[in-house]
Amino acid sequence: MGATPPRSPLAPDRFPDLPDVAGVELAVASAGVRYAGRDDVMLARLAPGSTVAGVFTRSATRAAPVLDCEAKIAGDDRAGAAFLVNAGNANAFTGKAGAAAVDALTGAVAEAAGLPARRVFTASTGVIGEPLPHERIRARLDTLTDALAPGGWEAAARAIMTTDTFPKGAGAQVEVDGRTVSISGIAKGSGMIAPDMATMLVFLFTDAAVDRPVLQSIVAELADRTFNCITVDGDTSTSDTLLMGATGASGARVWADTHAFREALGMVMLDLAQQVVRDGEGATKFVEVTVTGATSRSDARRHAMSIANSPLVKTAIAGEDANWGRVVMAVGKSGAPADRDLLAIRFGDILVAEKGWVAESYDEAAAAEYMKGQELRISVDLGLGEGRATVWTCDLTHGYIDINADYRS
Amino acid sequence: MGATPPRSPLAPDRFPDLPDVAGVELAVASAGVRYAGRDDVMLARLAPGSTVAGVFTRSATRAAPVLDCEAKIAGDDRAGAAFLVNAGNANAFTGKAGAAAVDALTGAVAEAAGLPARRVFTASTGVIGEPLPHERIRARLDTLTDALAPGGWEAAARAIMTTDTFPKGAGAQVEVDGRTVSISGIAKGSGMIAPDMATMLVFLFTDAAVDRPVLQSIVAELADRTFNCITVDGDTSTSDTLLMGATGASGARVWADTHAFREALGMVMLDLAQQVVRDGEGATKFVEVTVTGATSRSDARRHAMSIANSPLVKTAIAGEDANWGRVVMAVGKSGAPADRDLLAIRFGDILVAEKGWVAESYDEAAAAEYMKGQELRISVDLGLGEGRATVWTCDLTHGYIDINADYRS
Repeated sequence: MGATPPRSPLAPDRFPDLPDVAGVELAVASAGVRYAGRDDVMLARLAPGSTVAGVFTRSATRAAPVLDCEAKIAGDDRAGAAFLVNAGNANAFTGKAGAAAVDALTGAVAEAAGLPARRVFTASTGVIGEPLPHERIRARLDTLTDALAPGGWEAAARAIMTTDTFPKGAGAQVEVDGRTVSISGIAKGSGMIAPDMATMLVFLFTDAAVDRPVLQSIVAELADRTFNCITVDGDTSTSDTLLMGATGASGARVWADTHAFREALGMVMLDLAQQVVRDGEGATKFVEVTVTGATSRSDARRHAMSIANSPLVKTAIAGEDANWGRVVMAVGKSGAPADRDLLAIRFGDILVAEKGWVAESYDEAAAAEYMKGQELRISVDLGLGEGRATVWTCDLTHGYIDINADYRS
Repeated sequence: MGATPPRSPLAPDRFPDLPDVAGVELAVASAGVRYAGRDDVMLARLAPGSTVAGVFTRSATRAAPVLDCEAKIAGDDRAGAAFLVNAGNANAFTGKAGAAAVDALTGAVAEAAGLPARRVFTASTGVIGEPLPHERIRARLDTLTDALAPGGWEAAARAIMTTDTFPKGAGAQVEVDGRTVSISGIAKGSGMIAPDMATMLVFLFTDAAVDRPVLQSIVAELADRTFNCITVDGDTSTSDTLLMGATGASGARVWADTHAFREALGMVMLDLAQQVVRDGEGATKFVEVTVTGATSRSDARRHAMSIANSPLVKTAIAGEDANWGRVVMAVGKSGAPADRDLLAIRFGDILVAEKGWVAESYDEAAAAEYMKGQELRISVDLGLGEGRATVWTCDLTHGYIDINADYRS
């Protein structure tokens, strides 16, 4: 698997202190799926009464665990639930054997954890096209269920890493109806960050009581504004999976209009999403791209993603070059409406271009100084309407080529 | 402007011998637009009776010369025509001053060459956002018109280069109605190949007699199958321009159904398009991607472009890694229909994957050997329908990062 890559320069200082979530127990184990000498399997058990919601990759070549989750996610059996996750093998593009491996694992977890198999959700991340050695995972299930206990977030976040350079977690506590509701989550990956290693995985837990349709709608809406607004390389995984469980153990009930909960969960998800970008392969700069004044929110997002995915914009950022001409190019090619002569472009607070040309006040030295920062903002106002969107990305560096071109060498 | 990059390893051995085209005269000059010590302006004059067709970038932030060409292209004045092209400055995102520069130049060429200004087409390639020093070009117009002469294709191809590493030309002769018709063309760039340097430019000439609507429809259709099927980095220029002039001087008339002409022109355009890919920034591999069995031609093209633009596929090719999992990923994310279990993937003639898994006959050593080649073919059959498309691209290497991240340093 080559040498462990160095920790991303954009990584947070340390793993955060996450609140325990009543009704959620975690365990990790080393099953040797592909890696040796490290934990590579994570099991989460949710107490009876829990609801589960999920959002999955839209790839037409979805992996076997994703297809299984999708088939189960709309069920609303309150018998409890389990999430079983392995790193090292994505069980993607593995034909009928892939589905059989999922069935074998979910059946075994159901038996070990005392749940119906329809309440066991799995996610796999790692190499594509190789059969999942599911018997190695099954051999560790008794150990895993014996070890289930509250907390242990960092160990869980580490167990699901592939080529991630740091474990990713975020949490919050919020008052609902006079009770304290906890939210904790972990994530791995960075889009299709990793060579052969497809996947972004996100697992979120709360002890609020949330009916499944409400939970699903909140999660889907927030995913659209967080995880669906990040990009490292524009390459979409075959395995992207976000699962959220709500145990209800806090006794606080959340409805569709419980804004405090929605806001807290949104912050947790955005934090995790941004951590994924901060671990983008080869990343040296964290970049926020905001487009305003578009004819609609979806058009704003299309422009923002065109900028965030442009290899020429991303290499310019790597080179600390305030190359606004490439931003103009990316807006022009996005396919969404734009008027060259109404564009205003800012790097940070520096107005770079407006009215179809470089701004009169533009100071190239100031812009060059700004580009040396590690956290950058690019803003484009289209001057057409009220649509706005923000997305997050990183730069494109030699590190990305090293990791992805030289991986098997 | 930094050191001249080395000639692409994928470049042809030498500039081809192109046939003169009766009714077409060329001249080049050194105007010092940005470069010193080299020709940077090209003038082509087409005899009275010529028709002109063109295809332009669809960017919403099109450059001033493109907007001017678009406004003129549908005109069918047989007074003759001229193409004036400069390298070093794209006259893009230059506000009202950009349009004024185009007007000044076309007016001056009209006077010098004895043509109406509405028959003078210009194209500019180079840095975005800086005013075009059009007076430097005007100062060379008398020299240019005095120097106009048949032939001189290689000098013309060199005069329009920016960061291209070799001049690009292609030509053909074909019998139409018992007469010999000549076709010659030149091109520069490679999508938005170049830092700050927007542009692919293509100029084609024939001495066939072709009515403008027929010429326009042939050129548009062939551009869709040639230049619109190449990609280096997925970044679309603000200045892409293809102009074709037909002088009629051979006396041979071409109609919409003159297949020999259409075929010969198609070969010339494909040759030029592939030369542009062969000069892709940092390219070390030339890659043909073919998708068959799609539900439509446009869906096939969407899959093929998703593969050809995927940074993970392109870095795998750079690393000589037969990473078919990334091809599966790119098909899955394209947005066009695909069925994981019907996919068949080939690298060259080697069947890599089929029926949702790696092929039984797959020999990884043979695939690894194949990937060492400089000319590669990736084929995907979707097994859904009759739609097919082929696109051409290159790999993504450290050279691309060097050129685009380190450009201004």
